[in-house]
Amino acid sequence: MVAHGSGPLAGTLVIDLTRVLAGPFCTMLLADLGARVVKVESRQGGDDSRSIGPFVEGRSVYFMSLNRGKESIALDLKDDADRAIFEQLLARADVLIENFRPGAMARLGYGFDDLRPRFPKLVYASASGFGQTGPFASRPAYDIVVQAMGGIMSLTGHEGTPPTRVGTSVGDLAAGLFTTIGIQSALLARETSGQGTHVDVAMLDSQVAILENAIARYEATGTAPGPLGNRHPSITPFEALATNDGFVVIAAGNDALFEALCRVLDRPELASDPRFASNDDRTVNQPALKELLQAALAGQTTDAWLARLTEAGIPCGPVNDVPAVLAHPQVAARNMLVTVDDPVAGPTRMAGNPIKLADFPDPPTRPRAPTLDEHRAQILDWLKTPS
Amino acid sequence: MVAHGSGPLAGTLVIDLTRVLAGPFCTMLLADLGARVVKVESRQGGDDSRSIGPFVEGRSVYFMSLNRGKESIALDLKDDADRAIFEQLLARADVLIENFRPGAMARLGYGFDDLRPRFPKLVYASASGFGQTGPFASRPAYDIVVQAMGGIMSLTGHEGTPPTRVGTSVGDLAAGLFTTIGIQSALLARETSGQGTHVDVAMLDSQVAILENAIARYEATGTAPGPLGNRHPSITPFEALATNDGFVVIAAGNDALFEALCRVLDRPELASDPRFASNDDRTVNQPALKELLQAALAGQTTDAWLARLTEAGIPCGPVNDVPAVLAHPQVAARNMLVTVDDPVAGPTRMAGNPIKLADFPDPPTRPRAPTLDEHRAQILDWLKTPS
Repeated sequence: MVAHGSGPLAGTLVIDLTRVLAGPFCTMLLADLGARVVKVESRQGGDDSRSIGPFVEGRSVYFMSLNRGKESIALDLKDDADRAIFEQLLARADVLIENFRPGAMARLGYGFDDLRPRFPKLVYASASGFGQTGPFASRPAYDIVVQAMGGIMSLTGHEGTPPTRVGTSVGDLAAGLFTTIGIQSALLARETSGQGTHVDVAMLDSQVAILENAIARYEATGTAPGPLGNRHPSITPFEALATNDGFVVIAAGNDALFEALCRVLDRPELASDPRFASNDDRTVNQPALKELLQAALAGQTTDAWLARLTEAGIPCGPVNDVPAVLAHPQVAARNMLVTVDDPVAGPTRMAGNPIKLADFPDPPTRPRAPTLDEHRAQILDWLKTPS
Repeated sequence: MVAHGSGPLAGTLVIDLTRVLAGPFCTMLLADLGARVVKVESRQGGDDSRSIGPFVEGRSVYFMSLNRGKESIALDLKDDADRAIFEQLLARADVLIENFRPGAMARLGYGFDDLRPRFPKLVYASASGFGQTGPFASRPAYDIVVQAMGGIMSLTGHEGTPPTRVGTSVGDLAAGLFTTIGIQSALLARETSGQGTHVDVAMLDSQVAILENAIARYEATGTAPGPLGNRHPSITPFEALATNDGFVVIAAGNDALFEALCRVLDRPELASDPRFASNDDRTVNQPALKELLQAALAGQTTDAWLARLTEAGIPCGPVNDVPAVLAHPQVAARNMLVTVDDPVAGPTRMAGNPIKLADFPDPPTRPRAPTLDEHRAQILDWLKTPS
């Protein structure tokens, strides 16, 4: 069995029916926080993401990086013997999480309304594309569908290019994060009420919830916000600017930082230019300001500017690619790159847990992801012990 | 006082020193879930985002949309009388959250090590750019800095364009979500340990945690992943494709869906083409497949294709702009657009809470954001009552 017990969620048992990304990302966070996560997989190949690349020695590194520290048992929820095992697990569980199409669990006899009378303390979480209610509830969704329907693609990219997807699956990841928050809030409520509840999180809803100031801008102006290129819509300068060998990102979010920036660039007169007097003025006159800033930046390299800007206390940074991120000393110092040792693929690095807690360990190595049905025998033995 | 008490976090008191986005987004989620959030603001203008646009009748809609349902008291944490009030609040609080530069709280005498002996049950959360530890801890960061340094900008956008920022502040929002999860996990641990802990979340760490399969791809191939345009790196077809009047997003994530797609497009022969036999084959031959799919899609409108694809059960969607998102029937059915009634700006719509819980209300109107120091008298009166 996977070693557990040292995180803030130690003692919490999560039965995990989820596949691919939003659900498994949620239960990985719960496992990282100390919960015991039992992944209940289909007998036919298990979690679909086991067969989604990239692969090393035939093992999906994608699957490995989302399922570390979990146990696996393969169950056919239409088979009576397997259903009995599943129900024994539920009797001991704190949380059940599923990301089937709405209605699928009820067809198995395992909808929230079926399980609540039998397992009143169970927190039952459903992550889905469009939620358990509403006219789109039964439609299928994947990340790019909700990125497109939820508005974030309309805000991302440069004018004149085709639509731009956010380069990571924020459609799934945001839903996974909100599901985690929903599960924990239900566990906290259970401390007083003694009973679980149904947590219903939709990927589309989660996209609306992270539109941030785009809704405010539309409400204030009546104009649909368009793609933003590489700048902030209402703070200036707050963008990627060209140097003589690349780009530097500068975030001079207030008047004092803007003045300091103008001094570093040897253009102190810009700070007293009435076009750039306040953040609002700078935002209105952003094209003119950008041209002047880029002219000032053109003579030196990104590294040279980063050194000078950092010394002056101006928020700035390079545009790092993934190897640069993984090699960054701050990423190492924060243990944000952890290693699992897979017996087939070998030691593999993946993102660590960004929730650092003073009284709980944050080990640099983590238990690997399970093979399909790996923990069947141990789980069945454990179910024989008194609960 | 703002009405509280009906969510899963009812009875939880959060003292909130945060400004602008990551922290206020976290405490808005906590307030939406029923916590009482007391926003402790500076006497000089309060939360900086009160002066960040867009404005309606002089009120920042940005601020309004991040601070609904909170109370406000203005305190000078260098003033003895105000410090006494702050400490009385801490004595009753479950959670303190701050997003100052690391070290600032300790200089005020309110670092975690200062407060723990006096308030052992307090969950102390710090959200910062780079975290409380490591060589970059004291550096300033804003959203675009961590989007750039954390790698997501290197994955977003089309080949040949300048760097592309995700069109919403995922640098802040991800940190706000992880901070919320950290706080809740600490509250759950407190149920058994009886004591709080320090939750330390960094914006940069949070970006690394959402790089998702980009790290796996680099680990598997040794090649830095580049900008992805509008497609998924390892699932195909999973992208935005041109129609005769715009774009349609199609996510045919497995062989069965790909076959169904080929039938809808009247190109059944593509399903048996060996170049496109498996998802891996389709990913390797994505440019050729995309050309064939676009040729098939060119004859009809986005709406016509959406109808046909939906009927065939193929995950698909339009690329919605913000007005289209806000007008969507599913968004309405899910109560994802709530209204606050601001006495100056009038009724204002904003994103709802994506965490739907069966046993807790999800009202369509929410209490408005506070004016600076609005709740001073009530809070001082309340502090006179027995705790």
